[in-house]
Amino acid sequence: MTEIKINHIAVVVENIDDSLAFWRDGLGLNMGKIQEVPQEEVKVAFLDAGESHIELVSPTTDDSGIAKYLAKKGQGMHHICFEVEDIVAALDHMKATGIELINEEPRERDGRKYAFIHPKSTGGVLVELYQV
Amino acid sequence: MTEIKINHIAVVVENIDDSLAFWRDGLGLNMGKIQEVPQEEVKVAFLDAGESHIELVSPTTDDSGIAKYLAKKGQGMHHICFEVEDIVAALDHMKATGIELINEEPRERDGRKYAFIHPKSTGGVLVELYQV
Repeated sequence: MTEIKINHIAVVVENIDDSLAFWRDGLGLNMGKIQEVPQEEVKVAFLDAGESHIELVSPTTDDSGIAKYLAKKGQGMHHICFEVEDIVAALDHMKATGIELINEEPRERDGRKYAFIHPKSTGGVLVELYQV
Repeated sequence: MTEIKINHIAVVVENIDDSLAFWRDGLGLNMGKIQEVPQEEVKVAFLDAGESHIELVSPTTDDSGIAKYLAKKGQGMHHICFEVEDIVAALDHMKATGIELINEEPRERDGRKYAFIHPKSTGGVLVELYQV
């Protein structure tokens, strides 16, 4: 099995520009792309952190999933995403060991397969898998 | 400036052995060291994730800082730690840009300098810096 790397840590923030005062200007991470994702009603910004990224996410509407999350839980770390070589094999292995999955089959976004693991099985962490 | 990498993501869990069912056996991360840290009243386990680590932390007493955190917030991601080359320069730069620090001067543990940044300035994330 190849090494499993952290692809990104997602952080939900109220305002991306405000939060860049820390992540870009204070900590000094290099900016990657920043874009709106209309179908998810969010704006996202990626910053480089070695082989991984920090993904800042903020809602662009008041009733999106992320807007509701923010209203309920406040700002902070939202999920951690790992790169795996074969996402179907990884999900099958997890299912077989009794781990609760949010997505039993991989979903696809921008041609990339992903799936979420339920925090119930991870020690309270929402975990995403990417096949890269 | 050299590249800033993620050193580790700390996850607070109720029971390290239980949580290894996901992190080690399910996800397949390689185990690093596992040890008790009596002065902090915690047990910690490190797992390899590329150039970074997942640090599982669980309380060994009922009244430690982590035990109280767990009782109040539940299991989940606790902080993210970045490696910096010069921690004093990093903290001075942050102070000058108005970022609120928990430790204005670096502290030391196992011969390694570290400091925490207040979540108020980061978008709700407790951030640790390590000088490596």
